[in-house]
Amino acid sequence: MEVLRVSLRRRIELDVEEYIRDKTVLIDKALDAFLPGEDEFPQTLHKAMRYSVFTGGKRLRPIMVMAAADAIGNESADVTGVACAVELIHTYSLIHDDLPAMDNDDLRRGKPTCHKAFGEATAILAGDALLTLAFDMIACKTSGRSFHKIMSIKELTRAAGSFGMVGGQVVDIESEGRDITFPVLEFIHIHKTGLLIRAAVRCGAIISGADGKELEALTKYGDAVGLAFQIADDILDVEGVTKLMGKNIGGDARKGKATYPAIIGMKDSRKRAEELAEKGVSALEVFDGKAEPLKEIARYIVKRKR
Amino acid sequence: MEVLRVSLRRRIELDVEEYIRDKTVLIDKALDAFLPGEDEFPQTLHKAMRYSVFTGGKRLRPIMVMAAADAIGNESADVTGVACAVELIHTYSLIHDDLPAMDNDDLRRGKPTCHKAFGEATAILAGDALLTLAFDMIACKTSGRSFHKIMSIKELTRAAGSFGMVGGQVVDIESEGRDITFPVLEFIHIHKTGLLIRAAVRCGAIISGADGKELEALTKYGDAVGLAFQIADDILDVEGVTKLMGKNIGGDARKGKATYPAIIGMKDSRKRAEELAEKGVSALEVFDGKAEPLKEIARYIVKRKR
Repeated sequence: MEVLRVSLRRRIELDVEEYIRDKTVLIDKALDAFLPGEDEFPQTLHKAMRYSVFTGGKRLRPIMVMAAADAIGNESADVTGVACAVELIHTYSLIHDDLPAMDNDDLRRGKPTCHKAFGEATAILAGDALLTLAFDMIACKTSGRSFHKIMSIKELTRAAGSFGMVGGQVVDIESEGRDITFPVLEFIHIHKTGLLIRAAVRCGAIISGADGKELEALTKYGDAVGLAFQIADDILDVEGVTKLMGKNIGGDARKGKATYPAIIGMKDSRKRAEELAEKGVSALEVFDGKAEPLKEIARYIVKRKR
Repeated sequence: MEVLRVSLRRRIELDVEEYIRDKTVLIDKALDAFLPGEDEFPQTLHKAMRYSVFTGGKRLRPIMVMAAADAIGNESADVTGVACAVELIHTYSLIHDDLPAMDNDDLRRGKPTCHKAFGEATAILAGDALLTLAFDMIACKTSGRSFHKIMSIKELTRAAGSFGMVGGQVVDIESEGRDITFPVLEFIHIHKTGLLIRAAVRCGAIISGADGKELEALTKYGDAVGLAFQIADDILDVEGVTKLMGKNIGGDARKGKATYPAIIGMKDSRKRAEELAEKGVSALEVFDGKAEPLKEIARYIVKRKR
């Protein structure tokens, strides 16, 4: 019985990894097709944009756009454009977060950060251009009704703007080196990371023509899994291996940044991440087998080693 | 006869100034209503955003959105949202251009630049949030068909992105202190300034349901006037009065930035600006009296003292 469970578990894990690999190939191909070529003028800018987009990112956000679309199962919908848009917003935020005026990081995914490789001015502008291009991709590279595109743009602007990701980054910077309370920590995590993941899931569903009930379920999933993802990241930051994470591990603690393990301990952090992942899975009860990828992604997210 | 011509001229000038004043009031009111309040969390970020938006900008770009809409004359269209979006994109670009890593300017419109007042990190993030909010305003604060909103978003992403404004800024920075040719100077001006003005005019028309012929005429107008505007700015930079411009005059020359007067001389620069303004006016022949504001704005732009 135990053997069976282990082998079943292994089979499912293998499936989600295969699913992620397949989608990653699709997304990388689309990003390569949609991004301006390195030989297009001004070349420095386009090189910097591509450098940061193709630095071995996990592509988990665009994969979640696609997995949400798969859950809705509308064969005629193509969410590749909106999936790429989400990845560009994520990439721009990393470039700007790494800047000397912000987190001042030299390494990202094992390679020099954008400003280290191309200089500060180009890095700021590459981030600006990627954020701008994200909305272009929804307008021009996403299939479907204009109304659904406008709804997706609304989702992403709210998730990425001053009440979302940018707001979270401001609070994160203002909190550095200070004792912060648990609610502030959770605010930072939800805003810096959670809302964009929630928006990714919702956009995939909206472009696929999800109904209200489906969207509600996916929103609950996105909220839970978005936070679980960031807690898992905090855990990896503490215990990860430099080689696997490709950035300076323990960097959060060194910078005086609050993390889940620092505030509630490693054991409770792990428990909270797993509970949230399962909460996300439970929210998907309204779907049939088509939501399996999303469910497995939730479990994968809290178990990953990078 | 001469007396009559002078008094007629004065009357028209008075009209365009009144038109600009009226529209400025509308735009300022809308921006105030659409932007998050200073008391909304995170307050520092929202204060920085409002600080830069309300620093006495001329609002010429949003006014041109409105004047283009007036030329189409669709009573049911409300372009206020897209007008504000264009102003936010302009404002974000000023904040980022002023940063130490870029033009390193301390003054803008007679007040400390955003990073001088709020610090570099907040300034970068305020710019990011304003760019993001611009697309939100088209999605949520603009009336009209979703298809027209998507078309407007496409216009603005192309005008503002790596093949537009951001691309122009990269070339501008790379050209500092170097001898540049006239074609490179014109590339910088068209990309840093011209394309957003062209997009402003086009968006006002698109949201108002312009037909192909109208859009073509307005595009010609936007191309000519966009470049005329920047040449006029170059002239003002050389001869302007600090008090009126509110920034360090002659700054372009000091930074080794190429300008029209530096390359083709003051007299020819003036001539070129006036020719372009008249070219813009001529492009509007297809319209009846409803394009008068646009025509007068073109003339006003090359004559203004700030």
